[in-house]
Amino acid sequence: MRPSGRDLSEMRPVSIETGVTKHAEGSCLIRMGDTHVLCTATIEERVPPFIKGSGLGWVTAEYGMLPRATNTRMRREAAAGKQGGRTVEIQRLIGRALRAGVDRVALGERQITIDCDVIQADGGTRCAAITGGWVALRLAVDKLIKAGIIASDPLVDHVAAVSCGIYAGQPVLDLDYPEDSEAGVDGNFIMTGAHKLIEVQMSAEGALFSRDQMNTLLDLAEKGVSQLVEAQRAATT
Amino acid sequence: MRPSGRDLSEMRPVSIETGVTKHAEGSCLIRMGDTHVLCTATIEERVPPFIKGSGLGWVTAEYGMLPRATNTRMRREAAAGKQGGRTVEIQRLIGRALRAGVDRVALGERQITIDCDVIQADGGTRCAAITGGWVALRLAVDKLIKAGIIASDPLVDHVAAVSCGIYAGQPVLDLDYPEDSEAGVDGNFIMTGAHKLIEVQMSAEGALFSRDQMNTLLDLAEKGVSQLVEAQRAATT
Amino acid sequence: MRPSGRDLSEMRPVSIETGVTKHAEGSCLIRMGDTHVLCTATIEERVPPFIKGSGLGWVTAEYGMLPRATNTRMRREAAAGKQGGRTVEIQRLIGRALRAGVDRVALGERQITIDCDVIQADGGTRCAAITGGWVALRLAVDKLIKAGIIASDPLVDHVAAVSCGIYAGQPVLDLDYPEDSEAGVDGNFIMTGAHKLIEVQMSAEGALFSRDQMNTLLDLAEKGVSQLVEAQRAATT
Amino acid sequence: MRPSGRDLSEMRPVSIETGVTKHAEGSCLIRMGDTHVLCTATIEERVPPFIKGSGLGWVTAEYGMLPRATNTRMRREAAAGKQGGRTVEIQRLIGRALRAGVDRVALGERQITIDCDVIQADGGTRCAAITGGWVALRLAVDKLIKAGIIASDPLVDHVAAVSCGIYAGQPVLDLDYPEDSEAGVDGNFIMTGAHKLIEVQMSAEGALFSRDQMNTLLDLAEKGVSQLVEAQRAATT
Amino acid sequence: MRPSGRDLSEMRPVSIETGVTKHAEGSCLIRMGDTHVLCTATIEERVPPFIKGSGLGWVTAEYGMLPRATNTRMRREAAAGKQGGRTVEIQRLIGRALRAGVDRVALGERQITIDCDVIQADGGTRCAAITGGWVALRLAVDKLIKAGIIASDPLVDHVAAVSCGIYAGQPVLDLDYPEDSEAGVDGNFIMTGAHKLIEVQMSAEGALFSRDQMNTLLDLAEKGVSQLVEAQRAATT
Amino acid sequence: MRPSGRDLSEMRPVSIETGVTKHAEGSCLIRMGDTHVLCTATIEERVPPFIKGSGLGWVTAEYGMLPRATNTRMRREAAAGKQGGRTVEIQRLIGRALRAGVDRVALGERQITIDCDVIQADGGTRCAAITGGWVALRLAVDKLIKAGIIASDPLVDHVAAVSCGIYAGQPVLDLDYPEDSEAGVDGNFIMTGAHKLIEVQMSAEGALFSRDQMNTLLDLAEKGVSQLVEAQRAATT
Repeated sequence: MRPSGRDLSEMRPVSIETGVTKHAEGSCLIRMGDTHVLCTATIEERVPPFIKGSGLGWVTAEYGMLPRATNTRMRREAAAGKQGGRTVEIQRLIGRALRAGVDRVALGERQITIDCDVIQADGGTRCAAITGGWVALRLAVDKLIKAGIIASDPLVDHVAAVSCGIYAGQPVLDLDYPEDSEAGVDGNFIMTGAHKLIEVQMSAEGALFSRDQMNTLLDLAEKGVSQLVEAQRAATT
Repeated sequence: MRPSGRDLSEMRPVSIETGVTKHAEGSCLIRMGDTHVLCTATIEERVPPFIKGSGLGWVTAEYGMLPRATNTRMRREAAAGKQGGRTVEIQRLIGRALRAGVDRVALGERQITIDCDVIQADGGTRCAAITGGWVALRLAVDKLIKAGIIASDPLVDHVAAVSCGIYAGQPVLDLDYPEDSEAGVDGNFIMTGAHKLIEVQMSAEGALFSRDQMNTLLDLAEKGVSQLVEAQRAATT
Repeated sequence: MRPSGRDLSEMRPVSIETGVTKHAEGSCLIRMGDTHVLCTATIEERVPPFIKGSGLGWVTAEYGMLPRATNTRMRREAAAGKQGGRTVEIQRLIGRALRAGVDRVALGERQITIDCDVIQADGGTRCAAITGGWVALRLAVDKLIKAGIIASDPLVDHVAAVSCGIYAGQPVLDLDYPEDSEAGVDGNFIMTGAHKLIEVQMSAEGALFSRDQMNTLLDLAEKGVSQLVEAQRAATT
Repeated sequence: MRPSGRDLSEMRPVSIETGVTKHAEGSCLIRMGDTHVLCTATIEERVPPFIKGSGLGWVTAEYGMLPRATNTRMRREAAAGKQGGRTVEIQRLIGRALRAGVDRVALGERQITIDCDVIQADGGTRCAAITGGWVALRLAVDKLIKAGIIASDPLVDHVAAVSCGIYAGQPVLDLDYPEDSEAGVDGNFIMTGAHKLIEVQMSAEGALFSRDQMNTLLDLAEKGVSQLVEAQRAATT
Repeated sequence: MRPSGRDLSEMRPVSIETGVTKHAEGSCLIRMGDTHVLCTATIEERVPPFIKGSGLGWVTAEYGMLPRATNTRMRREAAAGKQGGRTVEIQRLIGRALRAGVDRVALGERQITIDCDVIQADGGTRCAAITGGWVALRLAVDKLIKAGIIASDPLVDHVAAVSCGIYAGQPVLDLDYPEDSEAGVDGNFIMTGAHKLIEVQMSAEGALFSRDQMNTLLDLAEKGVSQLVEAQRAATT
Repeated sequence: MRPSGRDLSEMRPVSIETGVTKHAEGSCLIRMGDTHVLCTATIEERVPPFIKGSGLGWVTAEYGMLPRATNTRMRREAAAGKQGGRTVEIQRLIGRALRAGVDRVALGERQITIDCDVIQADGGTRCAAITGGWVALRLAVDKLIKAGIIASDPLVDHVAAVSCGIYAGQPVLDLDYPEDSEAGVDGNFIMTGAHKLIEVQMSAEGALFSRDQMNTLLDLAEKGVSQLVEAQRAATT
């Protein structure tokens, strides 16, 4: 029933390749099916003005899509002169999600910026960005720990995200673009490795939804996140 | 236990005053406690390029805050030269929420723009904007129906929104600013009059949350939305 | 002869409601007929770089219109990415006018920002903004005096503004929008309570004008300003 | 008493050199003392959207200053990414002033753009721009008449402008920069050759002013405009 | 003597991997040592306004760098709100270079946009972008030919580019970043497969240069371009 | 054969008039035929952040065109809200070229900004800007030397630039606009007085070119630069 032939609760193949750029303190290329996102982590020994002197660290994120990551070429945001609403919304989400898994006291007064650039898009780019972004963050933090710059691990748990939705009347896990563009309900679920919730975003896109459906999608999401956390673990140990 | 002395499941006083500007096709000033939002609806006989010729209508929203709607003066976005990320995120949410309650075929190929301008902020501005925005939309649509321009009512149900969260470890309804800024979990729930879900957004802001907590907050939200729908009904009939 | 049926030298009803927002140090909603402007004053203990260390204070203003303050919806300036020429011109005028009534030594090295946001427009918004802006300024200054932060009153006199023009060949006071859009000559007169002139701006809009006409309009303006100062006094004492 | 040694009612030397660029339909370099402004007129067979099809013509203006036209280098507005408030205000004034002297029916549905670029500034640049801009406009219109494109002269009279002010307590004509920066009252007067008023702008800059002072400055302005019109006539015949 | 241990006239290893994104009409990832650029070609059946109706085609290019393509994170241009001077200069160069190898009549009235995004930078990104961009262009054009949309091949020859410079007093081929940042003279040479020149850009960066040195660098460049054309050929046949 | 009737190796008449604005530390109006560029030098006792504390000086340049410097009016870049790609490219070139002739240690930690504003354009504006810019720089530096602020002359040699190209199949010196717009190959050559090369930029504009042609154009350029240096010398001594 799904365009890809997947089962309702079947994820796309996930792969996470680390160390893909030589300059970044942490980096990976995450592939969720045909969605490919390059994630890099940059450590800077400075923090935004609003927490200067607080002793707390900061994790933030930026998101972008290469102009031809999509089927039709999109206008380059740098040429347009501003980031679109969708971009802004997504990068705020990524930053919020990753911060939720960080002990900012343990991180110390420094900033880690996660850049997530979509090389190829096929649905679920924000979830891939969060999942891959955490890997880049993990690698950068490991470097700080190994160098003795920070003493205790500021990452309290894994952070991963997956989309679920109601497609053709059925709850499905990990929507690809053909599903995403037709789904009646679309949700993004961000969790820790222990399935504690960080962020839930569900939207009616044509069909309204009930509390039961919400809970069903959450079941699927837990299954998906477990697989993603597995892939994160494999990539970072 | 709440700074305002309200019970855990007690809303702030809600009032909706309609007809507050003489130019708009629909308008209201919604007050949820000390949060005051002016909502206007503008009907235009044109639609965005991407649906031109489709016969479908469009509902969109814009959101703004007066510079001194808040305790500390914020920089005017027009002077800054762009809308901030928070503004963009909120106005996209309002538009999506209201469209979910509209039969776009029945509306016909025209656009209704809902402007939501926060006169005074005390938490929950996006929820007030959606709830008041629906009233402005309702009034504008009534004008179209009365003028015989559209035949059947395109508004399929009420749309209202309320925030809930975990404050001081307790689930509370309709957070004001002191609660909002301290809440460990913060959620916005958008529903129809019949409690069908349109959008759920829950974020960990310090404390992670469980599925049970999510469902508890949803219970509170249903209670709150019922009251809001009541106020909408009183204001529009 | 006037569309509103007013006499040539008759003002629209004026009302000034103070304390309309809880956050600002001073605020009012001024209504000149159907022109409604919300004015707030914000005190900040810092000044622009060019007077830092001079011991002098600063008063500045910003002006905006809600998108649907007018008969046809105007594009939101924050969305357009810049303030239009008219906005810039008006807010510079408001700031200049209010500063002319301030003893900047007595104010001390601090800044007061007057935000004037037009809720509903029907001609004469800049004059209403100046007249209401002065009330917000007065209230904020009173707070500084009462708190013992400043010793002597920095406001040397009232500042108020009114428009006059040649409409259908006749000199008229306080133009509303239907008159303003047809007037051959259009003037804005800003004065102190003692009728000392602060700013005079007269423009031919179709019909040139003579010195005699200028002086006739000035007579009308003095009459109008007296009424406005009366309303300011009533609102602030 | 004046820094330049001029009498109270003495203008700076005025010269207007025409034909200074080979591309423009009309051009001049106007010098009022050390204030030098290059004015060009461009004719285009199109009008702004809001008068398309009306049969009416349009005259508009743009104003700029070379970065080192002033004593201290100013940031280039093109590099800053926007025109400052002062620029916007001045170019709107120039356009309004010149339009007031044009019979837009006789001009026909075409646009003339007057560019006024300040090569060297020493006070009074907006007045020089209007006076020189009219010369460029005159030359461009002459070309249209000579070519038989328009039949009757759309320029109803000369348009010229001069500044006057209260300097060191005395009314003075044609302020240069040292006077302008110290003046208590500053005014710009725009008139036709027949001394009909087009625009009057007077501002208190430290000292308030009376109606009598306003009329005294107007006397001076009439004297100055007569001299400027003489120079315009010499340059264009 | 070179930091990398290469001979003076030794290129870095070059690899060109095609078909790296599923959406673009042509794509490759070119690696010149540690400089990695992703190039995609997008075909659109429209041309810029200035050649509409001419029957001629257009090839244009855009260039970007991922924020962490470099050793230190650079600000994202989309976030900064504009493309920097260097970016603009480079993308204009790429477009000009590729157009020089295109018979625009044979291409027909359509546009091909080459996006060059630097994934990792180590000197010579503009040369890699041109060389890889040509491969993406070749693949896209092949698709048009195969589909019978264009009849004769519009690509008249290969286009490739290489940098040469004077490093530590010696002429060297294909500068990497450590060389580039120290070079006294820096040049970019763009040629066809037959070594006809398309663009030569040489700059003194500390040391001036002579005509003899220019010709020596040109010798090196020819050698380098031959290798690059070889790699292009291998990738596209 | 040339539209202007000039010989293949004949320059347009060159004139350099100095001291054209009273405010700048150095200024000239350079005329190369109908191309007129106003160049000013501004000395500031500060440097860009990236060399603060290094003891080195900085020379930078900005370039602009008056809107009607060209045959058709171009949009004012300040109004457009950004500098176009061509402007950015040219001003970077001017800055680079002039810096190449400066001993930045001898200049000391200060910045000289060269503003080049095209009053009238007829081809070769960037070359005129460099040649005239050097004169403004020379005059400003002389002022620093005369004032005893710097001890040894930081200008190591003259810097001048000329364009050459292949027009109608023939190599020609100093292209004017009619030639420039038709040339098959277009080059800009920047040299010192001693004919050491600073920058060479050659582009195929329709016709590819050979190394021999490049060297022939270089011969022409040397001839042209000698004449320009002569004019610089005459203007500055």
